[in-house]
Amino acid sequence: MISGTLFMLVLLCGVEAGHAGKVLVLPGEYSHWHNMRAIIDALVDRNHSVTVLVSSSSPTVQHTRKERFDFNVFKVNTKKEEANAVWSDFIHLWMNDTATKYETVLNIWRVMSNFMLLFTDICKGMFHNEDLLHTLRESHYDVLFSDPMMPCTDLMVQKLNIPHVLSLRATFAYTFERLCGQMPAPPSYVPAVALQDHLTDHMSFTERVENMLLYIMHMTIFRLNMKFTFDPLYTEIWGKPTTMCETMGKADIWLIRTYWDFEYPRPLLPNFKFVGGLHCKPAKPLSKDLEEFVQSSGDHGIVVFSLGSMIGNLTLERANTIASALGQIPQKVVWRYNGKTPETLAPNTKLYDWIPQNDLLGHPKTKAFITHGGTNGLYEAIYHGVPMVGLPLFADQPDNLMHMKTKGAAVFLDVNSMQSKDLVDALKTVINNPSYKESIMRLSRIHHDQPMKPLDRAVYWIEFVMRHKGAKHLRVQAHDLSWYQYHCLDVVAFLLSIIALITFLFIKTCCCLFRKCFRNTRPDDKAQKSKKE
Amino acid sequence: MISGTLFMLVLLCGVEAGHAGKVLVLPGEYSHWHNMRAIIDALVDRNHSVTVLVSSSSPTVQHTRKERFDFNVFKVNTKKEEANAVWSDFIHLWMNDTATKYETVLNIWRVMSNFMLLFTDICKGMFHNEDLLHTLRESHYDVLFSDPMMPCTDLMVQKLNIPHVLSLRATFAYTFERLCGQMPAPPSYVPAVALQDHLTDHMSFTERVENMLLYIMHMTIFRLNMKFTFDPLYTEIWGKPTTMCETMGKADIWLIRTYWDFEYPRPLLPNFKFVGGLHCKPAKPLSKDLEEFVQSSGDHGIVVFSLGSMIGNLTLERANTIASALGQIPQKVVWRYNGKTPETLAPNTKLYDWIPQNDLLGHPKTKAFITHGGTNGLYEAIYHGVPMVGLPLFADQPDNLMHMKTKGAAVFLDVNSMQSKDLVDALKTVINNPSYKESIMRLSRIHHDQPMKPLDRAVYWIEFVMRHKGAKHLRVQAHDLSWYQYHCLDVVAFLLSIIALITFLFIKTCCCLFRKCFRNTRPDDKAQKSKKE
Repeated sequence: MISGTLFMLVLLCGVEAGHAGKVLVLPGEYSHWHNMRAIIDALVDRNHSVTVLVSSSSPTVQHTRKERFDFNVFKVNTKKEEANAVWSDFIHLWMNDTATKYETVLNIWRVMSNFMLLFTDICKGMFHNEDLLHTLRESHYDVLFSDPMMPCTDLMVQKLNIPHVLSLRATFAYTFERLCGQMPAPPSYVPAVALQDHLTDHMSFTERVENMLLYIMHMTIFRLNMKFTFDPLYTEIWGKPTTMCETMGKADIWLIRTYWDFEYPRPLLPNFKFVGGLHCKPAKPLSKDLEEFVQSSGDHGIVVFSLGSMIGNLTLERANTIASALGQIPQKVVWRYNGKTPETLAPNTKLYDWIPQNDLLGHPKTKAFITHGGTNGLYEAIYHGVPMVGLPLFADQPDNLMHMKTKGAAVFLDVNSMQSKDLVDALKTVINNPSYKESIMRLSRIHHDQPMKPLDRAVYWIEFVMRHKGAKHLRVQAHDLSWYQYHCLDVVAFLLSIIALITFLFIKTCCCLFRKCFRNTRPDDKAQKSKKE
Repeated sequence: MISGTLFMLVLLCGVEAGHAGKVLVLPGEYSHWHNMRAIIDALVDRNHSVTVLVSSSSPTVQHTRKERFDFNVFKVNTKKEEANAVWSDFIHLWMNDTATKYETVLNIWRVMSNFMLLFTDICKGMFHNEDLLHTLRESHYDVLFSDPMMPCTDLMVQKLNIPHVLSLRATFAYTFERLCGQMPAPPSYVPAVALQDHLTDHMSFTERVENMLLYIMHMTIFRLNMKFTFDPLYTEIWGKPTTMCETMGKADIWLIRTYWDFEYPRPLLPNFKFVGGLHCKPAKPLSKDLEEFVQSSGDHGIVVFSLGSMIGNLTLERANTIASALGQIPQKVVWRYNGKTPETLAPNTKLYDWIPQNDLLGHPKTKAFITHGGTNGLYEAIYHGVPMVGLPLFADQPDNLMHMKTKGAAVFLDVNSMQSKDLVDALKTVINNPSYKESIMRLSRIHHDQPMKPLDRAVYWIEFVMRHKGAKHLRVQAHDLSWYQYHCLDVVAFLLSIIALITFLFIKTCCCLFRKCFRNTRPDDKAQKSKKE
């Protein structure tokens, strides 16, 4: 007799069949790519064969380097330097505090138009290349793993007819998750995006009004943007009417790059898996000279300072303001900075072209982290329990730091307007006020106390869709409903019509009865009157 | 230097401190208790000290038996036999097919009134017993684990001021989850409850109307029921105005006794953890005589038949109809049945007072399972991959079997009206049509392919709330909003007022301007007229 255990093993073996799968990756850029890279490494460790499909213009994915996975590079018209310039323009948009409002609007328009040109070039480079499509089809991949930061990646899923796993940081007002993924997000307690010093999951009436307006604004911009840019592009490539949202909504699993240590609690869907901080690792020992510098800080410890992979330098004026502030604290400072050395740089601060950020944050002498608030760096701070001073620049960074501030683990400043004193005060606060360390340690405990490590969870669900050829049992049927059906507006209209009809018939009947009674009495009255006469 | 790994270990050790916790359990009855029992055993295995607080009237929790955990029995006025009779009445309510509609309504009213008396007696037995409360307070429990089937259990959390973990099967129209737990459940694709042969997550317009009406009906009944029964009781015991929903809504973790193998995909909340099938285990070898009987079935295999722990027997007429059907199939049948042996019983069918259901379902010779559709049995069938013939009786059973039917793993019949031929046809269908086996195997693969086993997940989250003294970071802020705030009705009303005011001012201004122009022209006209004159 085959015992129950054996039977279960047979069952599981069936599931595990074809374990080493073929993964096609369409990556994002900058920190998005660094985050996906951690998952790719873990997939390779588990013997999966990974191919990264990337355009020749990619500014971050170094496809000429030898890796443990393959690159498939498709040619596009845009040169790498041109793509670099578009991204660079985008960053400087947020750091240009001398531009007038009119100039800023014009700049945004110009940058967005350039992005659209770049994206269209990449999309067409992929889908107008029949040889590439043929090779991809013949390769019989088991899953496509992509970042919606790069458009058209979901169209590739449709072309190859394979399961799809998305990797994304929660979008503003949850537009992707709500409008394409069908995630409910009640505006009454799910903030669209954290604004300077307000909008958390605990809102006053005026904040809820503001939040509702933010939702409406984000939705309108998103819908208009899609209607006039990506939807026509998707329709052209696909050859029949479609939308970006419809295509993205077919994803099997959404890997969200946050977790409840960072997010305010809110509804989710069964195919949304939270994998924030998956790239974090225990700290490795520092290089000899860095360790010596760190140890020289004595009991005061060190401050780690980096503005992320996109920002290497600042204007000299800003750099001087910051350097002057750093000189006023008793800690030593490790500053990742590629620009011209500020004149006000004090002996306690050392500049580095590159720093082993994770190892430094995991060092017991680290007292604080000055960060731009990118999700990756922020999760390293949570992982190692280091309170933060935020200098947010653009995109999701102010929102990220707002989350940390309301959870008591960070203070943040406006990098363009702050003075030296502000930075000194902020650093002293997070280092000397024990509540910041306590708060970040609480978040760290939540982060470390999960049923499964975030990286393992990400790999698990990618393997799951390979094993089961998708995850349809986790995808809500809401995708098949129109917006008015989803909100039951047709049902409500029908029920209200029925109520109106019943009320109308009731009133009509009452009127008829009343009239009949009235008619019945009038002849009597007349009769009585005629009798009297 | 303490390395990063060591630091992480220190951090985790902090979390793990006080690992062996003290758990207070307020159990449900019947299958609910059997399900909680599996979690209690796992907690005891992990060295936690467990106390089960139970009333002297409990019909299922055998508190005189020696166990690896403690019982704390509190005295109530109701006798065990009386409590038994109330439950028994409840069961027979659904099996009495001779009662008229009027009698049925009267019977329901009587049974519900008896339940209310029983529950009130239990609640008062707990909370009017100062010695008991003192002992419980002095015991310093780390968590209360309860089933909302038994009321007032959540009030105990408030009295003892400790974290709370709930264990429940999804309620009809998700009333508990929606109204007390704040889970969103859009009626457009989340069926309130499966009805005979329709209402899944894929609904036509008329089905959505029906679903909406079901939601409204369930909500109305629930609200009225709470308002006139439990809320006054809760207020009396607590000593200040409160409601059952408010108290239950404070729970840290909701352990839902299903999973996506069974449920239609729908929204959930971060503190909702799905643990369906946690009691399932690999099959153990059968006793010698049972194994011999099973083996004697040859290639035809066996059919397992049980109507669960609440139903031991049937009317003789129903038993004869069933027995006659069972005699017409080539399989052997293992039937759990305590009633009088039916005259039509064929030699292929053997009756047992009790059967090792899980071991039988896990036996490779088992071809089908005839079940009442209780969640526990149904999950054993999913776990072992056995297609089902459902004979639902009451409560969630028709809904459970409808889920299995729409997923292609079961057929179901009306036990009160079916004929022998119907049962024979149903059995032949699930045994001979391979699609049923394929469907249940697909569900089985989904069930076995989870990041964590359901029992481990349940234990993990109970231990989590003990380690962290709650799980507030998973509980949505929606609990602090009134219903109109939650649905943003105040915000919408405000915004519409603003729009109305602006429109009004715009029209008024236009009118004024128009009048002014009109006035300006009229004197001219007059002047012209007078000139003419």
